[in-house]
Amino acid sequence: MVDDLTWPDTRALDLFGIERPILLAPMAGAGGAALAAAVAEGGGLGAIPCAALAREEAQAEVAAFRARTRAPLNLNFFCHAPPSIDPQRWQAWLARLAPYYAERHVAAPQTMPVATRQPFDAAACAFVEAVRPQVVSFHFGLPPADLLARVRATGAVVIGSATTVREACWLAAHGVDAVIAQGAEAGGHRGMFLTDEVATQVGLFALLPQVVDAVDVPVIAAGGIADGRGIAAAFALGASAVQIGTAYLFCPEATVPAAHRAALRSGGDADTALTNLFSGRPARGIVNRLMREQGPVDPAAPPFPLAGAALAPLRAQDATGDFGALWSGQARALAVELPAAALTRRLAEQAAARLARPGVPPRMI
Amino acid sequence: MVDDLTWPDTRALDLFGIERPILLAPMAGAGGAALAAAVAEGGGLGAIPCAALAREEAQAEVAAFRARTRAPLNLNFFCHAPPSIDPQRWQAWLARLAPYYAERHVAAPQTMPVATRQPFDAAACAFVEAVRPQVVSFHFGLPPADLLARVRATGAVVIGSATTVREACWLAAHGVDAVIAQGAEAGGHRGMFLTDEVATQVGLFALLPQVVDAVDVPVIAAGGIADGRGIAAAFALGASAVQIGTAYLFCPEATVPAAHRAALRSGGDADTALTNLFSGRPARGIVNRLMREQGPVDPAAPPFPLAGAALAPLRAQDATGDFGALWSGQARALAVELPAAALTRRLAEQAAARLARPGVPPRMI
Repeated sequence: MVDDLTWPDTRALDLFGIERPILLAPMAGAGGAALAAAVAEGGGLGAIPCAALAREEAQAEVAAFRARTRAPLNLNFFCHAPPSIDPQRWQAWLARLAPYYAERHVAAPQTMPVATRQPFDAAACAFVEAVRPQVVSFHFGLPPADLLARVRATGAVVIGSATTVREACWLAAHGVDAVIAQGAEAGGHRGMFLTDEVATQVGLFALLPQVVDAVDVPVIAAGGIADGRGIAAAFALGASAVQIGTAYLFCPEATVPAAHRAALRSGGDADTALTNLFSGRPARGIVNRLMREQGPVDPAAPPFPLAGAALAPLRAQDATGDFGALWSGQARALAVELPAAALTRRLAEQAAARLARPGVPPRMI
Repeated sequence: MVDDLTWPDTRALDLFGIERPILLAPMAGAGGAALAAAVAEGGGLGAIPCAALAREEAQAEVAAFRARTRAPLNLNFFCHAPPSIDPQRWQAWLARLAPYYAERHVAAPQTMPVATRQPFDAAACAFVEAVRPQVVSFHFGLPPADLLARVRATGAVVIGSATTVREACWLAAHGVDAVIAQGAEAGGHRGMFLTDEVATQVGLFALLPQVVDAVDVPVIAAGGIADGRGIAAAFALGASAVQIGTAYLFCPEATVPAAHRAALRSGGDADTALTNLFSGRPARGIVNRLMREQGPVDPAAPPFPLAGAALAPLRAQDATGDFGALWSGQARALAVELPAAALTRRLAEQAAARLARPGVPPRMI
């Protein structure tokens, strides 16, 4: 494989059996089989986010992916603690949102919310055993040891996300085959699971080399990477691959609501923040009305994922993006609108060119 | 100069007249002439932070630097708006701190505070005209046009810090010769001047390429860079040089109080936060007792730099670091304790080796 010689570190290519060191970030709601298959056709690793899907939906996504390509597939699951619902806290939060319900002429939720995202459980594990994906990735830690052992027994490569060195070491100690170092620049949910402190989250420039030094497994860089320069820089810092999310939201294969897509296209480097208002867990999104008016992080928000249920009536009426999560990383202004396979190839070519440093006298190298 | 061929972009080397593309970050209180001269002897650009110095002190620092080396010198100044002191707000803040004064048996400040850091003014400009440093750098924006014109008339290279693309464009439009892209990972004061929103500050991975794309002048990367990998990554993202602060705090030439030095040595990637408690402006420091108990950012803190005066009685009694700023970037665990000249050479060598990609078959390059 010619490409192998392009990359200073090919451990991730070998581990995942892919041609280009680019992983599609699992993005619930925005990235389904079409996006995953296109990334795979471009030589990267496609991912299907399963946490928010009913089992039949996940089954259909996997089938659609496999109908298009025989490439490796990454199935992503969440490992959060199931939320306990405190009626008082729930009602207090609804009271906070009452002016918005009134303004938009919608009723507040009348019943206690039901979690729409399930942590990885025995049923999900049976699904993995049936589907046998080449890669299984976890967010918010790892599943219990017995379930993890069953996943590993399928032969799947197991990876997890770390937002700190401590989390990376924990993942490595629990046997993951690679660690995703998720810099604070990343869009969507922080993988954090040993800390809940937003203020101390670490930028990728600082996090990545420290994680590389701390673990023996390959490290995948995530957060703020949207072009070939970022990929080259990640390799310079010791990464074996990158995981890219936001840049793929611009692809025609992404399923992004109109308000979200418009916000993404508005550009901007300094208009996102970490917020827990939309789901109950910290995630990076474009600052919108709700974040501005309530402050982006509020400990009173219902626990993950129940905060979302409180906003559901508002989102249903919301063509403006005022009340829905507009997930985005900090580098979205670098993104180009291309089909995902072409984008994957282009990103790899740009990175390879940057790593080869054209223009530098060959004798110096 | 052999080194020139090592770097993909030599504009900063040419602009500053230095051998290695490393700028010492100006660090008030921690980096004086000894540190600056050592960095200069190592081939980098030394800096003397003048904002917190009386004129005679600054004069003495410059003289000490020049007694050691004929290398170029960067004098750094602040451009904040002089604070207006609201007695009510001041007293309210003292009331917040009252339990600490009581616990430590110290008296609260009895008089309204006086700013210990002056913005760049006509007197500072006259100082620059007399000293004629090769480089003048500004934090928190730029001085008024007439003063900036006088600085430029001395022949000095002028640089300024940007924390967003908008700030970078503003600096470029106002005629700076290079822009420092200060990623959110950086220790000490954020250079922010067109925004005061901490939550939307941008990590270097995302900020740097966007700034590079937005301005025509060379861009200096700052924040989270503490070893050669970071320098190589910054070049991959389009930087022409880097500015390093925290890593130099470990040098014997740095003048770091014992509690601060101990905290720096404690390592840790995820134990810093942006805080305005110590000066009134957002800056990154190691989380200590005051930050933990009061929350790191509080809009009630007195305006820069007056917040510091409220803590002065506590700091005087504080061998623990509970009440003083422990400035640090997020990559300090990568630092090594070396004299500053040797560190500068080592950083450049590591970066050059990383950029040359040993191990990759030459035919691929």
